[in-house]
Amino acid sequence: MNFKTLEKISYGMYIVSSKKNDKINGQVANSVFQITSTPAKIAISINKNNLTHSFIEESKLFCISILPTDFPLKLIGQFGFKSGKEINKFENIEYKLTKNGLPYLKNSLVFIECKVINFVSEGTHTIFIGEVIESDILNIGEPMTYSYYHEIKGGGVSKNAPHYIEKEEK
Amino acid sequence: MNFKTLEKISYGMYIVSSKKNDKINGQVANSVFQITSTPAKIAISINKNNLTHSFIEESKLFCISILPTDFPLKLIGQFGFKSGKEINKFENIEYKLTKNGLPYLKNSLVFIECKVINFVSEGTHTIFIGEVIESDILNIGEPMTYSYYHEIKGGGVSKNAPHYIEKEEK
Repeated sequence: MNFKTLEKISYGMYIVSSKKNDKINGQVANSVFQITSTPAKIAISINKNNLTHSFIEESKLFCISILPTDFPLKLIGQFGFKSGKEINKFENIEYKLTKNGLPYLKNSLVFIECKVINFVSEGTHTIFIGEVIESDILNIGEPMTYSYYHEIKGGGVSKNAPHYIEKEEK
Repeated sequence: MNFKTLEKISYGMYIVSSKKNDKINGQVANSVFQITSTPAKIAISINKNNLTHSFIEESKLFCISILPTDFPLKLIGQFGFKSGKEINKFENIEYKLTKNGLPYLKNSLVFIECKVINFVSEGTHTIFIGEVIESDILNIGEPMTYSYYHEIKGGGVSKNAPHYIEKEEK
């Protein structure tokens, strides 16, 4: 197989957030898709090493903030390349909470909150399947795609991403 | 919840194909993402009413052709709005077969063939989880995104898509 083929799959740029007791956390994610429309169900793929993963396991809830093209690269770095085990990622960030207490970014396009109804463990990652319980439009704009993030904004890849490949493997 | 929020999730444009005995079929799909990189695993969401769904169930194999921006709208119509129960979708189409006999389109960017290792039934759709067994680059170009298909090419939505919403529901 040729690993370069996988780079042609299209993705968006999202912050997936969750909570555990009084703590909140979020991380950059790309692997998000809708499964069914009635009822609306969404699947996401999250690395088991990430703090957000354990928060989703605990609360059985996750919230997706969809990022616009003008979302600052610096904030993507804060959510994508730092760990919630070491810093409070939401410090100095403008966010709101859903009724269930999950954070979403005020400068994202929309938020979509889901209740986990199923999950599949696949090696390094878990696919969480969620039913949408609350969602709303926050701002007007174009969603940032993963290729836009790479090519226009010059962003990098976290080693915990589903599509991360060690350089020597490429 | 606001169904309009789900339209901000980013997707690519793919033909997902499979076979059953000596028959081949394929359909347009958007819900495709990578789950893990070692080994490379991919998840897709397929409507249970579609012929491709029963072929994947039977063969335990699926192949993804990633479409370029210049892929003809007419061919998307052939794969997205017609049923393999009524026509041979690959008639008059330039395609090749993988070693396992699954078809992929010669004018797509890459093909990625997967062996089904797990699946999850979620109402109208099944998430098939596949491990990549063969893949290669076919042509150089930009992947067509779902928003490009809608906004630039003026394409429509099949009623069997995961994100299809009846007009009265919107």
